[in-house]
Amino acid sequence: MLSDIEITHQAKLEHISKIGEKLGLKEDDIELYGKYKAKITPHLKESNSKLILVTATNPTPFGEGKTTTSIGLADALNLLGKKVCLALREPSLGPVFGIKGGAAGGGYSQLAPMEDLNLHFTGDFHAITSANNLISAMIDNSLHQENPLKIDKILWKRCMDMNDRALRFITVGQGGKADGVEREDGFNITAASEIMAILCLATSLADLKEKISNIMVAYDIDGKPIYVRDLGCADAVCILLKDAIKPNLFQTIEHTPTLVHGGPFANIAHGCNSIIATKTALNLAEYVVTEAGFGSELGAEKFIDIKCAKAGLKPDAVVLVTTIRSLKYNGNADKSEISVPNMRALKEGIANLGGHIENLKDKFGLNLVVALNKFGFDVDDEINFVREYCAKMGVKMAVCENFAKGGEGGVELANFVLKELKKPSHVNFIYKASDDIKTKITKVATQIYGADDVIFEDMALSKLDKISSLGLDNLPVCIAKTQYSFSDDAKLLGRAKGFKFSVKDLEIRTGAGFIVAVCGKIMLMPGLSKKPSAMDMRIDENGVISGLA
Amino acid sequence: MLSDIEITHQAKLEHISKIGEKLGLKEDDIELYGKYKAKITPHLKESNSKLILVTATNPTPFGEGKTTTSIGLADALNLLGKKVCLALREPSLGPVFGIKGGAAGGGYSQLAPMEDLNLHFTGDFHAITSANNLISAMIDNSLHQENPLKIDKILWKRCMDMNDRALRFITVGQGGKADGVEREDGFNITAASEIMAILCLATSLADLKEKISNIMVAYDIDGKPIYVRDLGCADAVCILLKDAIKPNLFQTIEHTPTLVHGGPFANIAHGCNSIIATKTALNLAEYVVTEAGFGSELGAEKFIDIKCAKAGLKPDAVVLVTTIRSLKYNGNADKSEISVPNMRALKEGIANLGGHIENLKDKFGLNLVVALNKFGFDVDDEINFVREYCAKMGVKMAVCENFAKGGEGGVELANFVLKELKKPSHVNFIYKASDDIKTKITKVATQIYGADDVIFEDMALSKLDKISSLGLDNLPVCIAKTQYSFSDDAKLLGRAKGFKFSVKDLEIRTGAGFIVAVCGKIMLMPGLSKKPSAMDMRIDENGVISGLA
Repeated sequence: MLSDIEITHQAKLEHISKIGEKLGLKEDDIELYGKYKAKITPHLKESNSKLILVTATNPTPFGEGKTTTSIGLADALNLLGKKVCLALREPSLGPVFGIKGGAAGGGYSQLAPMEDLNLHFTGDFHAITSANNLISAMIDNSLHQENPLKIDKILWKRCMDMNDRALRFITVGQGGKADGVEREDGFNITAASEIMAILCLATSLADLKEKISNIMVAYDIDGKPIYVRDLGCADAVCILLKDAIKPNLFQTIEHTPTLVHGGPFANIAHGCNSIIATKTALNLAEYVVTEAGFGSELGAEKFIDIKCAKAGLKPDAVVLVTTIRSLKYNGNADKSEISVPNMRALKEGIANLGGHIENLKDKFGLNLVVALNKFGFDVDDEINFVREYCAKMGVKMAVCENFAKGGEGGVELANFVLKELKKPSHVNFIYKASDDIKTKITKVATQIYGADDVIFEDMALSKLDKISSLGLDNLPVCIAKTQYSFSDDAKLLGRAKGFKFSVKDLEIRTGAGFIVAVCGKIMLMPGLSKKPSAMDMRIDENGVISGLA
Repeated sequence: MLSDIEITHQAKLEHISKIGEKLGLKEDDIELYGKYKAKITPHLKESNSKLILVTATNPTPFGEGKTTTSIGLADALNLLGKKVCLALREPSLGPVFGIKGGAAGGGYSQLAPMEDLNLHFTGDFHAITSANNLISAMIDNSLHQENPLKIDKILWKRCMDMNDRALRFITVGQGGKADGVEREDGFNITAASEIMAILCLATSLADLKEKISNIMVAYDIDGKPIYVRDLGCADAVCILLKDAIKPNLFQTIEHTPTLVHGGPFANIAHGCNSIIATKTALNLAEYVVTEAGFGSELGAEKFIDIKCAKAGLKPDAVVLVTTIRSLKYNGNADKSEISVPNMRALKEGIANLGGHIENLKDKFGLNLVVALNKFGFDVDDEINFVREYCAKMGVKMAVCENFAKGGEGGVELANFVLKELKKPSHVNFIYKASDDIKTKITKVATQIYGADDVIFEDMALSKLDKISSLGLDNLPVCIAKTQYSFSDDAKLLGRAKGFKFSVKDLEIRTGAGFIVAVCGKIMLMPGLSKKPSAMDMRIDENGVISGLA
């Protein structure tokens, strides 16, 4: 079996300008970054093209293959002669050197060249890092230059695209009088920066500037918010992002056009690619396949209630990816025997799939297909059981073999999706903008997560007051909780129900334009592992890379 | 008068592939980064083309226009029908937001688009930042994972391309047991990173890997050096630099081909563009104009004794840039009246020019022309005085008006240079590789700087022993001292002589392959000013930038 990177090295890629031609892009619309990647001019008109959202059941330690399925589905639509474009997130560089590795699909459903995508790509993450850290430098410089803004409590953190736990909690400004003002600080990974969320939610350069101006970075000594506009550097920050805001054109190894743009965390942020890229894809193709982070209760909910609400979008069909392995895991199968057939565990764990189907089909009112990402060790009895379960719930299930077969392995899914797309589409938002923040969180937690009750801890209660006093109750909520369960407890597998849902804290993101509800511990700066992937990577004298997963 | 950025916006640039054609580059040699910048394949054969080094008298607060003169000279050679290529350094992003602004020449002798060059360009600095910080993350991870290498004293610092004084002295790893090991650390600006020096001194990807492997990052508890190769991440670091090592093709506003590649500090490092770019330029053109940082006693010395010695290069002619203003400053003219004619000050200060001429012509044995960068307020008497002074010293002086007139303003200089290039060329190195470090420093300080005596302080003496015991006496020395004087005292203007030169400390750079002699305070992380340039920058809704200097 070839490794992922070997498969991409064997693929014959097309020049990216040829991929652009398939989308009708003119020469002037394309800024090449080498032969296989390009920045393109955003196209932001209203469009009647079909938007297909790929989401999944709750993640497990084994991986469900959501991106592989997204790529495979787009390649399948391409095979069927449809004018299709993928709209995906950019992977973060830091985790590539840790355990996680890159994120460009897998097997025969991949984006390529994968080393480009997983390393610096077109520099968007670096631009975001610079923009974030210019704000930090301006804050610390203002403190140092006699603090004219009377900065007191600083909310803004530095960032870096690296797995580096030693930077989580630091003290800066320690050298002496000439070396800044001593204070506690920390670095988040770039994907967790509010700038990343802003880039993904901005609808134009002017909107980007307004959002950046509105970032709340600190409170002054009277408790009044200080914004980036008060630091006087909103334009400079925007200047650093002038290219990063343009979507990146890329391709699958089957030459399906792909816009890869933006990569916000799916906990502290909304976890989807940029609005600009999604809209551009809809302008350039008839079918757009996109995805949202983590399971549907987190990713699809934010996709709809944050991204779609802000952008005036709706998914015309939704693909819910699952695996028999992850359903068995949800049915408490032994991890060491997860590949062994186990109908007992499957029957118990399939409730997880059921919960996601119910939410997507009945609560959000979406056209839905289940994609079973098939592995070699899955047996027919198990597959048939899932198919019948889906049928009983009123949805079709397609068997997907994209990892092994590329687009061909996704033709059944593509056909089911095309059928769903013939139905009228419609989306129910879970809350209204006019609901206050407490109501919004409560609606998501009870209606989507399945909580009986929502408990707001003291810190969260005091923040609710702050939010109201600042007039920010109209913002959507971005809930940061564990991705492993419907609930806020990673161990409650299956279809958790009847639990109490705790909100510990709320964070105000006036730039991105949402309120983060912190429900559990959220990790914003990963660490490297005992034997980091960095140690297994090789590059030869011709620049050929191996060991990049 | 138009601002620099306005001048570049009025220029009609050529598509960068057309600039590449002028150099005989084939389509496969060029990786476009948009329309106006490209990465090109290195060309590293021996070449008989002519290498012209542009250096200067000691810097003053007013600026001498060295890069403007380099660009103007190349444009003039281009006007005269010569096949010419510039080989310059990349500017650092951080200072753009502080006081200094960008670095792309000025007036009508500029590189363009200047916002591209001064912002992210082709991402080289970001790649170097990532590479540097991956090493830091690996060190801190090793500490955290039970410290198998028994790391004790860490030499390696993090870096960021930002003017951020608060990061000079920090403490990392403060969160608790899961958040790394607490220790003192700091960030240098990216241009001061050893990785930057390595990138500029590497002669191939294989050589880059070897140099990175050899970086000494720490001592273990037994005082034994720990290298990047011991961390096991040399390949991963190299992978991050696989594109950064390729030269960047750019153009002047008069369409002269320019390779802009690498930007190491001229104190802690050698302050020249990359060997790979200089050699590639020599392969692609008949005349190559390059420059070295600060005044000739620092920049030209390192260019010769470090870069040329390592690369097997020699300058066929040298241009020594000066201004009447800077010579008057060296003659203790009042700063507030520096633009007023002042023969007394000029006569006193011209000794500075004399010292540089003597060094370049007599000590290094180089073919030399003086370029007087003329300002509107310079009067004929002053200009004639400098010309006659040069004549007495046996060198021609050309009046340069590149800022106001572009290449046309450099034709006299170009013609003088072409004459020098007809002479045989030859270079005297100041020291031999076999001299020990103490001897090397002493030779440079006495023969080039003009010191009577060299004092090695205690710390330096103990490091001399360490260097000998590690067998590193064969390395060249990279002296870090003030750029404002021949001496180590910024206030000794003119032709300082007969001073005692103090060496405080020595730093071992086994990756870059030199020993840094620290002679005075060296600033490796600048700060922002009271009103940073960032506050004056603007970008409109179409992405047009103003206020970027």
